[in-house]
This record gives sequence, C-alpha cells and structure tokens, in this order.
Amino acid sequence: MLFLTKEDIMQTFCMREAIEADKQALMIFSKGETNSPLRTNLELREEEGVSSYMPAYIGGSDPSLGVKIVSTYLHNIEKGLPSVTGTMIVMDPKTGLVTALLDGTYLTQLRTGALQGAATEILARENAKIGALIGTGGQGEKQLEAMLTVRRLTEVRIYDLAQDRAEKFVDRLQDKYDAKLVATKTSRECVEGADIITSVTPSNTPTFEAEWVKQGAHVNAIGSFTPSMFEVPKELIKKADRVIFDTTEGVLNNAGDFMTPLREEYIPKEKYSGELGQVLLGEVEGRTSDEEITIFKSVGTAVIDVIVASQIVDKAKEQGIGVVF
Amino acid sequence: MLFLTKEDIMQTFCMREAIEADKQALMIFSKGETNSPLRTNLELREEEGVSSYMPAYIGGSDPSLGVKIVSTYLHNIEKGLPSVTGTMIVMDPKTGLVTALLDGTYLTQLRTGALQGAATEILARENAKIGALIGTGGQGEKQLEAMLTVRRLTEVRIYDLAQDRAEKFVDRLQDKYDAKLVATKTSRECVEGADIITSVTPSNTPTFEAEWVKQGAHVNAIGSFTPSMFEVPKELIKKADRVIFDTTEGVLNNAGDFMTPLREEYIPKEKYSGELGQVLLGEVEGRTSDEEITIFKSVGTAVIDVIVASQIVDKAKEQGIGVVF
Repeated sequence: MLFLTKEDIMQTFCMREAIEADKQALMIFSKGETNSPLRTNLELREEEGVSSYMPAYIGGSDPSLGVKIVSTYLHNIEKGLPSVTGTMIVMDPKTGLVTALLDGTYLTQLRTGALQGAATEILARENAKIGALIGTGGQGEKQLEAMLTVRRLTEVRIYDLAQDRAEKFVDRLQDKYDAKLVATKTSRECVEGADIITSVTPSNTPTFEAEWVKQGAHVNAIGSFTPSMFEVPKELIKKADRVIFDTTEGVLNNAGDFMTPLREEYIPKEKYSGELGQVLLGEVEGRTSDEEITIFKSVGTAVIDVIVASQIVDKAKEQGIGVVF
Repeated sequence: MLFLTKEDIMQTFCMREAIEADKQALMIFSKGETNSPLRTNLELREEEGVSSYMPAYIGGSDPSLGVKIVSTYLHNIEKGLPSVTGTMIVMDPKTGLVTALLDGTYLTQLRTGALQGAATEILARENAKIGALIGTGGQGEKQLEAMLTVRRLTEVRIYDLAQDRAEKFVDRLQDKYDAKLVATKTSRECVEGADIITSVTPSNTPTFEAEWVKQGAHVNAIGSFTPSMFEVPKELIKKADRVIFDTTEGVLNNAGDFMTPLREEYIPKEKYSGELGQVLLGEVEGRTSDEEITIFKSVGTAVIDVIVASQIVDKAKEQGIGVVF
C-alpha cells in the first residue's frame, strides 16, 4: 500500500496535470461510463459534524475504484484544524484490494481548482487580463493557481468578507505569481471590470451583483454545494449566455443558487446548456463570441477524485514518491 | 496515523478481549446509541465484484467513528487472493480526522468469531463437551477458536462440503488446541450429539438437518447474509426454544433462512426472542434449562467493527504496536 502526503502529491502532480486529468474525468463522466452512488452522510449530532463517504467506480479500458472520506466539522476551526478534511482511498478495481491512501484534503483543493481551471481554459476569453477571486478559505489558493495556469492575467483582485483574510492571502501568495494580487475592500471593486470571476464561498446570499459583471466575462461558481447555499445572483444566471455544469445531476440536486431559479420558473430549463464534459466531447457548444457571459458551476463528484487520485498514484509509483507500507 | 497489519492486531488483541469488546458493542447497539446507515454497495459488473462501505458512529461518553471497506470478488480465488477482503478506517470522532487503518480482513474474522464466542458463552450449556463446525473457509479458524475460548470442549468435529478442506483444516490447527479435532465425512456425523454447532457457510440450502440436533444444544448460524442464503433448516428454527440475533434489523433484512419462515408464517413472530445485547442487558431471557435448544444468528454490523477497531487502536498505541505514519 502506498501513502501519499500533501507534499508527496505536490511533488507528483502539478496544476496543469490536474486540469488535464479533470478534463478526462469530465468526459468519462459525461459519457456515462461511471458508477458513483449518492454520498452517504453520517450525522454526528453531539459533535456537530458530518462524516461523508463518496465512492466511485470507473469502468472501460482503464478502470479505477476508490472512496473519498470527507469530514465536515465546523468546530474544528476553534481547534486550529480545517473544518473540512479528507482522506482518499484508492483500490485495485481488478481485486478490490486497497492500494493507496492519499491526503484527501489537498486532493480536493487540487482537483477543485483544476475543475475551474478546465472550465476557465475552455470558456473564458483568450485575452482575459483581470481576474477576481471571492473567498480566501481552504480552496482559495488552488482556485487562484488554476486561473493563473490557464490565462496570463496581469491582475487578480481578491475579496473576502473578512478583509484581513484577503490581505493575508495576498501577502502570502504575491511572490509566487507574476500577476499583481490586490485585496479589495468591497466585492464590487473586486468584480467590476474583471474578465474572469471565481466565487468560492459557502455563502447563503449572493457574493456579488449581476450588474457588476461585464459582457464577455466568465464566471466560476465553485462554492455552493447544498440547497440552502446561494452564492451566485439569479439575475446573473438569467443574463448569462451559457451556463455549464460539471455534472447536471450534482448541481441540480445540491446547489441552491442554481436549483431555485429553475424551480421558481425564473429561468427556463434551456438556460442550462449542459456539462463541461459534453463541451469537451463537442456535444455542447461553449463560448461563441467575446461578448458572451459564461458561467461554470461545479459541485464536484467522486468520479473526479477517483480518476485524479489513480493518476497521481500511478505517477508517484513510477517516480518512487511516497511511502510503501 | 497508525497502521496495523494482521500480525499487529494478533499481537494486540486476543479472542477473549474481542469477545468482551463485542459484548460491549452489542449492548451499545441494543441501547440505540449508534448511527450506522445501510451499507453502500457499489457493483462492479465488469469485474463481477462488489465494493461495500459500512460506516458507523457510536455516541455517548466514549464515542467512536469509522468505516469498513469490504470487497467481494468471487474471481479473486483464481488469483490466489481471498474472495472477501477488507480495510478498516478509524477516525477521531471529535475532529473527523482519520487516525488509523487496520487489516479489515483479519478484523472481520476476529470480530465475527468473537460474536459467536459471546453468544456461545451466554447461551450454550456450561458443561458442553462436543463442538461441531460446518464450513472451513476464511471465517472458520476464528469460529473454532471462539468456541474453544468460552467452553472446555474435548472434541470438535469439522465438516466441509470439500472433505479435503476439512482435513487440511484439522491438520493445520490440531496442534494449537487441546481439544481433539475430527474431520467428518458427513454433516450428520459432525452434528449428531454435538453440544455446540456452528455453521459458517454461504450455502443456499441447509447445511444440516433439524432432527440431528440434540436437546440442550446451542446452534450458531453465522454464514447467511443475503436473502437468498439458507444455512439453517426452518424446522430447527421452529423446534428451538430461544432464537437470539446480533441485530434484529440486520437479520430480518438480510438473512434468507431467518426471513423466509417468518414471511411464510411457518413460525410466529414471537419465535424470535430478541438481541444478544438485550440478553446481556438483562432485558431478554437467554437459556433457562439444560434441555433447551438455543440459536444465535449473526449478520454483523459496522457498529461492532468500529468499537472493536477503536479498542484495538487504543491498546496498540499504549503498547507501541504498529507503524505510525
């Protein structure tokens, strides 16, 4: 059995590789060659925690199998621990034996950033220059890295409800990138004029307004993953020319901001264009002009975790990275 | 994170300790202080395998949390691998972080043997002398050990459909025990006159006949765990004075041999006396005379895996056993 820490994964797999792995996973998912049951959520009332189990099997010529265990403990922050942590277990699909265990917290950050990177690469204008990032929590850094991996941005504005968090985020990461990072005082300053806007928050109210989004912008909606979460304004969904999901089933069963406008008939069903995997397969159209507003909405799927983790394990084995037990 | 192999677990936790841990787990389960959702089964058609995920949370003053991953691959035998393998993941219930990984194949054998040991200790006659074991597959050895841990048997007869398997089983294990082990040619020779009968097979037809079971015997029905499995004859269930389950919900939703007689109204509902945890808590009566026939039926529950695994991990840490990663 192979064990890979965060550092091992960082050494093995860069953002560009993760983006390509995510693209493959999205195409496989959209082709329907996968089996991923609904996640099992074990509620731990006394701890105010949820322990979730997300297994997936991918068939075909290069099969893979695994399960991500995700713990969501809001009180972990008080203990100096991340509120969401994960462990990824990879199995041999031919025998069912467990073959690897990976840091699932970092894997989630990497594959979620890479999902946005894949979407931004495919849907954003080629000549995008200004980025906007709303939310500087655990997923923020990889979201920034993904935007900067697929477009040569000159500036990325960073906004967080807690302004000092945004400032610390900029201080910590400025030296890693050529693009200028700017912590903004308001969400409006962050979003107005931006070519690529990425919101990654668990907010129950929109984190920005539709009228601040310029024509030609691409918006990544990464944060919401329950029916009570509303990160993106419904007016933007109405205004957008193209709304693409990572998985239609996942978004329409979990993401409040995208479920509600449809249920309330504020928008027609046709507003939702399809899946990013379908765009990659040429079955659904992506951006068709520099004036369009595009939205990508992601809630993630265990299929992506399993495919990305299996590729990381294969590469780590080749390079002798990690500890074998 | 702590890693415990089969050898580590063997060194840490003996059958007697496993029996006591199982008793505690059964009482906690019967008190309702646990949360264990239905297992998730991921079917892998191309491999003819099933990957199952069995999480459980135990609340109260000594909480525990974990998930057992079980793989059932019938073709593994052709590859020289067990058809059923497992990995146990233990988490800190206060933070959700994964703290330990154990060999779940051995854990299953140990805790399943110990369940039978707990039942035999509580339900079999004190002066039992002759044991019978039907089935010498992966669970057989721990079933034998459990019977011999709780009663001073002078002889244990061993039967398997494949007679050479029974003989090899005896050859391999005779030196470990004072009791005489005897491979029998027929199931009847094995069962007739035995004080304690343990059947541990995935059989679809009864592995013995009710009329071979003497008055005063205790029968452990360990093997069946799907609605199509029938290990115990329905005539024995009718004849028995007391029928005790590990978990009522588990048995009546999974074990064909105990579901069918009830559904067909061959026996009244009252035939099923209650759970072993209730017997331990003094809420349900066990054996009341040396003439009664008692049956214990087990299908297992993730609650037992989690409680036993957590105790093993605690003790291994105290004794410095295992590898910390």
